[in-house]
Amino acid sequence: MPTILFKPQNRKVEVETGINLLDAATRAGLYIEGDCAGKGSCGKCRVKVGRGDFGTPTPAEQKHLSEKELAGGWILACQNKVNADCVIEIPIQKDACRRKTTLAGGVEQLVAEPLVEKKAVKLKRPAVKDQTADLERLLLELEQPQLQVKPRELVSFPRLLRENSFEVTAATAGGRLISLEPGDTTDQLYGIAFDIGTTTIMGSLLDLRTAEVMAVSALTNPQNAFGADVISRINHASKGIEELNQLQGKVIGAANEIIKDLLRRTRISRERIYEIVAVGNTTMSHLFMGIDPTYLAPAPFVPVFQRALEVEAAELGLSINPAGRITFLPNLAGYVGSDTVGVILAAGLDLNDGKNRAAIDIGTNGELVLAAGGRLMACSTAAGPAFEGAQIKQGMRAAAGAIEAVRYSEDDITCSMIDDQPACGICGSGLIDAAAALLEAGLVLPGGRFVDPEKEPDKVPEHFKGRFKRQKGGYHFTLVPADQSDTGEDIVITQGDLRELQLAKGAIYAGLIILLKEAGIGEEDLDEVLLAGAFGNYVRKESALRIGLLPKLPLEKITAIGNAAGDGAKMALASISLRNRAVSMTGMVEHMELSTRPDFQEIFIGAMGFR
Amino acid sequence: MPTILFKPQNRKVEVETGINLLDAATRAGLYIEGDCAGKGSCGKCRVKVGRGDFGTPTPAEQKHLSEKELAGGWILACQNKVNADCVIEIPIQKDACRRKTTLAGGVEQLVAEPLVEKKAVKLKRPAVKDQTADLERLLLELEQPQLQVKPRELVSFPRLLRENSFEVTAATAGGRLISLEPGDTTDQLYGIAFDIGTTTIMGSLLDLRTAEVMAVSALTNPQNAFGADVISRINHASKGIEELNQLQGKVIGAANEIIKDLLRRTRISRERIYEIVAVGNTTMSHLFMGIDPTYLAPAPFVPVFQRALEVEAAELGLSINPAGRITFLPNLAGYVGSDTVGVILAAGLDLNDGKNRAAIDIGTNGELVLAAGGRLMACSTAAGPAFEGAQIKQGMRAAAGAIEAVRYSEDDITCSMIDDQPACGICGSGLIDAAAALLEAGLVLPGGRFVDPEKEPDKVPEHFKGRFKRQKGGYHFTLVPADQSDTGEDIVITQGDLRELQLAKGAIYAGLIILLKEAGIGEEDLDEVLLAGAFGNYVRKESALRIGLLPKLPLEKITAIGNAAGDGAKMALASISLRNRAVSMTGMVEHMELSTRPDFQEIFIGAMGFR
Repeated sequence: MPTILFKPQNRKVEVETGINLLDAATRAGLYIEGDCAGKGSCGKCRVKVGRGDFGTPTPAEQKHLSEKELAGGWILACQNKVNADCVIEIPIQKDACRRKTTLAGGVEQLVAEPLVEKKAVKLKRPAVKDQTADLERLLLELEQPQLQVKPRELVSFPRLLRENSFEVTAATAGGRLISLEPGDTTDQLYGIAFDIGTTTIMGSLLDLRTAEVMAVSALTNPQNAFGADVISRINHASKGIEELNQLQGKVIGAANEIIKDLLRRTRISRERIYEIVAVGNTTMSHLFMGIDPTYLAPAPFVPVFQRALEVEAAELGLSINPAGRITFLPNLAGYVGSDTVGVILAAGLDLNDGKNRAAIDIGTNGELVLAAGGRLMACSTAAGPAFEGAQIKQGMRAAAGAIEAVRYSEDDITCSMIDDQPACGICGSGLIDAAAALLEAGLVLPGGRFVDPEKEPDKVPEHFKGRFKRQKGGYHFTLVPADQSDTGEDIVITQGDLRELQLAKGAIYAGLIILLKEAGIGEEDLDEVLLAGAFGNYVRKESALRIGLLPKLPLEKITAIGNAAGDGAKMALASISLRNRAVSMTGMVEHMELSTRPDFQEIFIGAMGFR
Repeated sequence: MPTILFKPQNRKVEVETGINLLDAATRAGLYIEGDCAGKGSCGKCRVKVGRGDFGTPTPAEQKHLSEKELAGGWILACQNKVNADCVIEIPIQKDACRRKTTLAGGVEQLVAEPLVEKKAVKLKRPAVKDQTADLERLLLELEQPQLQVKPRELVSFPRLLRENSFEVTAATAGGRLISLEPGDTTDQLYGIAFDIGTTTIMGSLLDLRTAEVMAVSALTNPQNAFGADVISRINHASKGIEELNQLQGKVIGAANEIIKDLLRRTRISRERIYEIVAVGNTTMSHLFMGIDPTYLAPAPFVPVFQRALEVEAAELGLSINPAGRITFLPNLAGYVGSDTVGVILAAGLDLNDGKNRAAIDIGTNGELVLAAGGRLMACSTAAGPAFEGAQIKQGMRAAAGAIEAVRYSEDDITCSMIDDQPACGICGSGLIDAAAALLEAGLVLPGGRFVDPEKEPDKVPEHFKGRFKRQKGGYHFTLVPADQSDTGEDIVITQGDLRELQLAKGAIYAGLIILLKEAGIGEEDLDEVLLAGAFGNYVRKESALRIGLLPKLPLEKITAIGNAAGDGAKMALASISLRNRAVSMTGMVEHMELSTRPDFQEIFIGAMGFR
């Protein structure tokens, strides 16, 4: 069996002959960027051959790699099978959430009102005159004779009692016994809130007595191996129960990795974690629960369930207390999931405060909520994951080396990168900034087209001319030249990238217009626009306004609220009242299905232009 | 590895060198009689060497086998390790419940009032104008919006709906969804009642729509390998979680074998079995649920739980519908289990009909119930498994070749055997009959001693003298001579056997006297004595009265009611009202702990004599 050495991680893995490099990296626990699940269509899984021979380039490689790159030993991981020992370089480990601040929540103060209750009791020892069974003895003392108890909780209970002088602590929730523990453990009461993103999974460990966030941990969603978007994953899951289980296994596995990391950092034992509250889009909720998502993909986009599902940790294989309760907050529609419930909860949009407020959550998908005139409406937009770098030639997620900001000033266009690393691609905020800067410099026209430096030479200042290059898809503009980049290649924004951006931002803006139309108000009537999601934290509001992603409003009416979906999950975990609010959300929110509205196409086309 | 051929079953098994023959037989799926779990103390696991050499007899073999037997190649399976190929004869496969009638219940008519409900629905197809999720669509049609649903039930639900034109059947029970099925399956509604005996496990498959018993199947409880009595099994389980799991695995495995047999015979699929209701003694309930029974053994004999435990089939690994509900009826005390609840239910002892009624259930243990003056009392007696042949020199269970009846008439003592096979031992009813016949013939004195044919020759008729033999433990009396027996040995009743019988019957009778004393009535005030258990069906009432096992009452006041514990399980399965009666039984029954009563010893000694 050939051995592969991955650098710079120095991770060695032995694989069977014929496996492709993408799968080999997964086996080695490494993540190689990519959006198309190994189809060869995205061209992002580029790696460099350190030692080994992979033959002549495939058509996909010829399409996505330049001659210089090919000559330099660059290949696409998905296109190459391992037949002999080799050394492969993955130059930048593109892992999610390198920016620490991504982990910070926007909620000032969480309210502690835990569902799980603990009570320490000292029982009277049994005697011939008092042969009451151990369990009934406990229930009498707890004053909960009707408590539901599973046999599993009792397996070692008699020994636990007798080895601890009949002093034990019982954890209960919703009329059920969750845990029996030695002595007094009432000071240990923990839970984890999960935000199951299509791209990133994030977990926050809370002390449920105080609602304090004790640790946060995140991982790339390893379902990524089956495609960056939910549709690819639905397609995979719909192939059969085995594939469905595979996708569920990936997300549960990642959640367990996060749990392990949280426990390691806080020194808390898994048995003391009694609850998990999770949010995610509707597809993620289905895959997390192992439920066939097939019919989410075609119209009429029907989920299998809408309600908040509850299940025991042991049934899902989650490594907390086996009787721990897992609650996935409810779905609102096929493409408006509990992540949006989280946003509504965190932003208090359901509180009907008399103001007209819109929330825009841009993750791998885009969801919109409008609270106006006592109504609460939501819709999803087919924005696609362009803001996370997919469909963008050199797009990448917000990791080290990503161009995150682009400025036009003093007649120059300059870039800054995450962690001040040499540029290796462009992330969502960088893309919006770049478009805004190019518009500002007059190098892109409001319709979205690059000015043509050959046909309209007077419109392009001389010092920019060298940064334009023509390819078959049209011009592209160099943001960072090859000699300053990490890859040794120019980092560019292409005409195709601009079109993708227009489609994405047009979809979002059109969705908002339709919600406003339904509510009978105009853009100008909005009191506040909230930008949720990590993206909302990093996008420059000025740029977003410049390219027409957001309605024409004064800057001060636009507020970034961070990862509101994740904050909602934390709030629902911390407080049972808030959770009940979230659980009953399905009855309050009107879902607008945009795809079949006769007016959508026209509004969408109108929304695509840059201002 | 040596190979053993077991005859007459012709079962070959390859084992590692050094394993003993008892374990080797278990590996081969064969059961060798025995009560002491391989300790060498009961002397029952006798097998004959067909080919092979097992060296000189061990002390245990010298104690339990005659010289003639040793010379004939008989050995004790537990005493011999396999070091080379051999042929071993297990002359009679002593399997439980050879008598077909053992399987018949005593309940005339079961009432059908099932807990599980089924409803077939045809749902409206979803559309863009009606994107209601599949589950919510179903719940609306079922008019059960609050129904509890586990993710597992939804895994393939969307496909099920669409492949069956949105026509499905939902099975629900107690506010929970149990099963989603294609089309209309409302005519398929089944459950199984289990009687988990220490010695025998019996299952009855019921059509829950009609309460008709469709098939019955039974197996020897394979926990037998760890001892015939509950104490041996408690001792094994208390060694650790692995041993506990081992015992649980045995009983669950046997239950699954029975389920398989029931399904095979009725052609019903396992998914259509929605419920199991089980009864058994308290130790069995603990081992079935996998709960540590350690503290049942020492005083104060405290069970871990008393209430009826409920659990999902999947959690116990029972092969019915994975969401099927398993209910083990409640324990009354450490040695009065749900089998007694079953007896009370089947006999209607909880109905307070104004009569004084006693029920005696003799299985591997003996339990007594007295309904008198509006009170319901129960106790257990340390009768031991003598009535199932344990502690009796040639005792065996009621299988082919067991002496089941002994008569004294025309000045002779004659025996009849089960299935008219040559005698190979004596079972409980035969033992009582034998004692009664010997008393009748004047060969045993009321104190329990054989007359001495040497010292009191005039008390023994001449033709009986040849049937007396003297050994170190006292005389024994030949019931069936060697030339007519199956083993080539005399089948005898020994002085020791008579003592064991006195202990057993004395314990039961003493228990009854104490219950009567508590109720403030005398034997003569009893309106009815019910004999429960297979034993009750086969024991001759005249003989039981003759030896003083039962109170002095006219024969017509004594009624055998068959396997009332199992009947109670069937009733509780068939009818939710009856089950609720059983579940609430713990609050009604007063448990009398005999072992620590100051008056017990005296009453017990008084109760030991034959009349």
